[in-house]
Amino acid sequence: MSLALNQRTTKRWSVAEAVEGCVRHGLEAVGLWREEVAEQGLAESVKLVRDAGLRVSSLCRGGFLTTPGDPASGTAGRVPSGAAGRVPSGAAGSARQAALDDNRRAIDEAAELGAACLVMVVGGLPGVRPGEPLPGEPDAEGRAPLFSRDLAGAREQVAEALEVLAPYAGERGVKLALEPLHPMYCADRAVLSTLAQAVDLCLPYPEEQVGVVVDTFHVWWDPRLFEEIARAGRRIASYQVCDFLQPLPADVLLGRGMMGDGVIDFPPITRAVAEAGYTGDVEVEIFNADIWAADPDEVVATMKRRYAQVVTGAP
Amino acid sequence: MSLALNQRTTKRWSVAEAVEGCVRHGLEAVGLWREEVAEQGLAESVKLVRDAGLRVSSLCRGGFLTTPGDPASGTAGRVPSGAAGRVPSGAAGSARQAALDDNRRAIDEAAELGAACLVMVVGGLPGVRPGEPLPGEPDAEGRAPLFSRDLAGAREQVAEALEVLAPYAGERGVKLALEPLHPMYCADRAVLSTLAQAVDLCLPYPEEQVGVVVDTFHVWWDPRLFEEIARAGRRIASYQVCDFLQPLPADVLLGRGMMGDGVIDFPPITRAVAEAGYTGDVEVEIFNADIWAADPDEVVATMKRRYAQVVTGAP
Repeated sequence: MSLALNQRTTKRWSVAEAVEGCVRHGLEAVGLWREEVAEQGLAESVKLVRDAGLRVSSLCRGGFLTTPGDPASGTAGRVPSGAAGRVPSGAAGSARQAALDDNRRAIDEAAELGAACLVMVVGGLPGVRPGEPLPGEPDAEGRAPLFSRDLAGAREQVAEALEVLAPYAGERGVKLALEPLHPMYCADRAVLSTLAQAVDLCLPYPEEQVGVVVDTFHVWWDPRLFEEIARAGRRIASYQVCDFLQPLPADVLLGRGMMGDGVIDFPPITRAVAEAGYTGDVEVEIFNADIWAADPDEVVATMKRRYAQVVTGAP
Repeated sequence: MSLALNQRTTKRWSVAEAVEGCVRHGLEAVGLWREEVAEQGLAESVKLVRDAGLRVSSLCRGGFLTTPGDPASGTAGRVPSGAAGRVPSGAAGSARQAALDDNRRAIDEAAELGAACLVMVVGGLPGVRPGEPLPGEPDAEGRAPLFSRDLAGAREQVAEALEVLAPYAGERGVKLALEPLHPMYCADRAVLSTLAQAVDLCLPYPEEQVGVVVDTFHVWWDPRLFEEIARAGRRIASYQVCDFLQPLPADVLLGRGMMGDGVIDFPPITRAVAEAGYTGDVEVEIFNADIWAADPDEVVATMKRRYAQVVTGAP
């Protein structure tokens, strides 16, 4: 395993700057984000990483597969729901198609970049937007924008979308990496909440098509973590590290910290991932206002030091 | 099952006012908190609930059983830890004793009140205080206040404390109710993060000594929720309801909302709890700045309406 920079850790850096930064600091791999790749241009991003001799440890991210659909279950909308919370059924189908289309584009991009995997953040409850209030106010026609409380149904949607996307990824030599997110993001970002769930979802597919992400921030609390890492085995497509801050900041998305600044005991997790057979890159992916405000070169230097001190457990 | 008021929902009310409020609104049971009981006086609180003919659905709360101990595992303190993060071993033993003593007092109070159970919030990582920054700065002698990242060890501490407290509770006719808390509170409030863990912990003890709390806020996201509710069966000692707000407020402790204001689909959970054999009271326990600022009588009226509309799934 060797250390890699996920470019979101140095948010100010473009793809070109992140690639240069990795080379400058002696890192062999970089995790890229679709938004930044689009800004740089896909073809230019491909050329930059190849010319620099870097591996692309992951492309972030596909997913958001849960889309508003049939509200017949009666759990949609706010209370009292009444007639609110309905959308025309045609719109449901086209939202689903749009999500699948976008994921096919993400797979194509991952293939172009030769990324080790496409990280999949599967999406929350249908119609709930990340970090935003619930869509509870009715529109001018008295219809509320739809959201659904049907968690089991949302989880089924993810499994169904995977049936479409896994073969598509397989044809292009791309591995989908299902990322269980911390349960505090279940409603708005990922109904995939445990490693056990992610492993169950990927087992029906060939190993080279679908795997899982182990991200310490999301899974450190899980009483079944070590059993599930062992069960995941060679399904582990990505190992991402960052710390869990205490207390969480006002925006819980930004509760990710530099390794050593939070509560996670990394070495046992790192050892378990290695013993499960993972030999890929270890991405540091930190969303954190202070780290984003700091000088990116200093962040990478700290990251390298902390990785050796805190993550690997080397003396 | 019938609706009960947990007095923290109407935080401004003393025990006397909460008892009066329950009677005024036709509720048959109240969940009390130790702090408020102490303010009112234990004997007077006992008299108030008896005279009003109310059941005490729970006493909140015992727990916080995880205390700083031997830092030999090397995971204590901040990074770089060095000599920091040490406490004299005598202090470790006395912190543990103090926690057990406080829980014995809580059990005695629950017995006096005839509470259906004593809710146990087991505590987070040793030395991490709820909602506070990690104790990372060294003191004048260069020793940092201790905290530990040893999650497995903290969970063992809980199991060990239970060996002492369960028989004590059994002798006094009190049932300990182990509450799994949402994983976002794992570091600072409860290393008990899933219902499965809580069920496993209580099974070695007689049913009347140790049970579990099912609190919708804490467990709604769990992919194993329905299997674990069924497995808990008659071990369910308390069913608490409130909603999970989206997005979470700046203080995540206050992310609990009135039923219907968040993302939880209550009726399937309520049905599962009933099918598991639970026939006790259903407490509404909401920590929420807006609800605490509102008129408590209006809060209780809303709570009754929403309970019927949203929680039971009655038409």
